[in-house]
Amino acid sequence: MSRIVARPLTREGFAPFGEVIDPAGAAHYLINGGQCERYHALATAEAIGPEARVVISVARSQPYALPLALGMVERHPLGSQAFIPLSPRPFLVVVCHDGAAGPAMPQAFITAPGQGINYRRNTWHGVLTPVGAVQDFIIVDRGGAGINLEEFHFPQSYEIDLPSDFAG
Amino acid sequence: MSRIVARPLTREGFAPFGEVIDPAGAAHYLINGGQCERYHALATAEAIGPEARVVISVARSQPYALPLALGMVERHPLGSQAFIPLSPRPFLVVVCHDGAAGPAMPQAFITAPGQGINYRRNTWHGVLTPVGAVQDFIIVDRGGAGINLEEFHFPQSYEIDLPSDFAG
Repeated sequence: MSRIVARPLTREGFAPFGEVIDPAGAAHYLINGGQCERYHALATAEAIGPEARVVISVARSQPYALPLALGMVERHPLGSQAFIPLSPRPFLVVVCHDGAAGPAMPQAFITAPGQGINYRRNTWHGVLTPVGAVQDFIIVDRGGAGINLEEFHFPQSYEIDLPSDFAG
Repeated sequence: MSRIVARPLTREGFAPFGEVIDPAGAAHYLINGGQCERYHALATAEAIGPEARVVISVARSQPYALPLALGMVERHPLGSQAFIPLSPRPFLVVVCHDGAAGPAMPQAFITAPGQGINYRRNTWHGVLTPVGAVQDFIIVDRGGAGINLEEFHFPQSYEIDLPSDFAG
């Protein structure tokens, strides 16, 4: 089983796959008479196809044991998908470039507490993967008609783990 | 100065103005092989007009002192606007029906910890109003061209306060 070690999530590392939703290091401007900092448009939702709309949902996910056995990734051809944690805990983010015969070798990231992500439309990714505890997330993704899910099962699972010095 | 006491935020009470984003009491279904509960489409984003898109931002707001002197409300003719707190603290939500000569008398709600809200397009509302501590929020609203802000200044301010038995 091929082993993949997660890297810390950064805007630069994640840029080919989507956006990191995190005010840290982002520009802001003041609104509401100076009472409020707005970190504007950290991510943009995509929604195409029949009856396309952007919806806001909540996900409450059980944690996954590590190392993770990753057998499948999925993508959404009609829209982006953002996950923003509602508690300051890290979660695992797995993505793949799109190759000639399906997804290329997975890349894994571990978020800093509070970081969210937005998968760009049609980006291969693993399912929502909190670690250590049940975690709630805001999801911002597409609603509408049409087929918006494609799954790919790897011929052999990957083993994904955190760095041995991870202290999240 | 007219005094308005905030009521606890409920789906029913807020329905004329938008949606409450809260898994409590909402339907869900299981995804990811049963590992995750999805509370689907608790709110729907609206974005119309030139170059309309839905963006995800973060707001970090200073708290407001209570009682609040409310002199102004605003609305967004081209899109909805959702605020979802990233810490389990209550915030104050002020909305108005639209009257013949501008916004009608304000109505105030105080959220339960964790509740977010989505103002429907063109709904009069007060600015983001955390109480007691600095608070971060996810905003889901419209980006694009065109004028998407209308403000209304009341001839006389309203005084908005929490119920005397409020223990949030």
